[in-house]
Amino acid sequence: MKQNKYDDPGFFENYSQMSRSIGGLDAAGEWHAFRAMLPELRDKKVLDLGCGFGWHCRYARDRQARSVVGADISENMLERARTLTNDSEIEYRRCAIEDFEFSEGEFDVVISSLAFHYVESFDHVCRKVHQALAAGGSFVFSVEHPVFTAVASQDWYYGASGEKLHWPVDGYYLEGAREANFLDNIVVKYHRTVSSYVNALLESGFSISKLSEPQPTQEMLDQIPEMHDELRRPIFLMIAAVKN
Amino acid sequence: MKQNKYDDPGFFENYSQMSRSIGGLDAAGEWHAFRAMLPELRDKKVLDLGCGFGWHCRYARDRQARSVVGADISENMLERARTLTNDSEIEYRRCAIEDFEFSEGEFDVVISSLAFHYVESFDHVCRKVHQALAAGGSFVFSVEHPVFTAVASQDWYYGASGEKLHWPVDGYYLEGAREANFLDNIVVKYHRTVSSYVNALLESGFSISKLSEPQPTQEMLDQIPEMHDELRRPIFLMIAAVKN
Repeated sequence: MKQNKYDDPGFFENYSQMSRSIGGLDAAGEWHAFRAMLPELRDKKVLDLGCGFGWHCRYARDRQARSVVGADISENMLERARTLTNDSEIEYRRCAIEDFEFSEGEFDVVISSLAFHYVESFDHVCRKVHQALAAGGSFVFSVEHPVFTAVASQDWYYGASGEKLHWPVDGYYLEGAREANFLDNIVVKYHRTVSSYVNALLESGFSISKLSEPQPTQEMLDQIPEMHDELRRPIFLMIAAVKN
Repeated sequence: MKQNKYDDPGFFENYSQMSRSIGGLDAAGEWHAFRAMLPELRDKKVLDLGCGFGWHCRYARDRQARSVVGADISENMLERARTLTNDSEIEYRRCAIEDFEFSEGEFDVVISSLAFHYVESFDHVCRKVHQALAAGGSFVFSVEHPVFTAVASQDWYYGASGEKLHWPVDGYYLEGAREANFLDNIVVKYHRTVSSYVNALLESGFSISKLSEPQPTQEMLDQIPEMHDELRRPIFLMIAAVKN
């Protein structure tokens, strides 16, 4: 299934109101961690899979990437990207993550932010990214963490007074689709284990260079009291890998 | 803290009654997965950190390892190992995992089964193992999974009728000691995140070759109905790494 929830007008409207949609990368709580995993981008050819509004494409150009391709399945997203983050060396292309077609070794860096948990086969993505990268090229991505995606409700377990008791994990090994509630809509997310993410990369010919389960910064903890709950369970998983 | 709970007579007696203590490797539910991660052992010099009764040392010799050193902090464990798994080419040495001293590059393979979650600094272990391994040598270990060690109680969250509702996760990012109940005793286990395990290896100069969150085999699921609960949350994490 190739999901394109972002071309559903109601869903897109809700997404457009999220702070990360309005404020860009600095409004995304995990950006500090993702940025730290990126390789040097100067003079590199970069592909962003599931580029959304193009904030990462824009960042790559700000870091003097030679050229950038942003791919997304949603026409709504790409239209907004062309408005918000346009650049002569960014090309926005409409295609599903599963379907992108590029020349072998065309890119130096492939990135993807919070998109692969919408894709059914991560093995397939790994093989395609490996093929699209030049030798020594970097692959850096973030997904919702398997601890976060295991139970479809994606919510805390609450006590009688509405307090957050803990985060529930169940069905961890039952990989596959979960109907999750996101922005008041039912969205299909694919749960995979941590080992499935890591081993798919290794089996496709990548070396792992870093794995991150990002935490809020001290500044975020100080400014936003609810951020302390983000220390109780991981919400994102990020992996940086290199093509052997 | 170097914990030596196994020289507490009551605890050791309880441990000795566990099926894995009596039946050896085949009675350990995760052995099929651990075995699959081991490299070729023939003619290798092998070190087992936290060797317990020596079942893995014995296995290494059965696979024609040239020689094996089994290290454990517990005199009780080593005494039992010398009785159960004695071999002219296995040397059992008493030392804490944190303290072992070997020549640089002395071993081809270092293994450890369910011991490192008793050790406070995994970084320290990684540096020592890296130093003890020859170039290209293998490091394969299992630990209790961070999803399993996050909450000290290490138990399911139960419903009103005593049914297992789900597995609770909390305090995931708060690494460090947990007082866990194991075999009717309080044991100190150290919780670490998945990323801490992986990045400590990478930063010490290892490459990751495989990560496993082992599941019961179909045979185990068929024979032991309760094993189905083991599909609901991960209990063990295993990593195979190679010294660069």
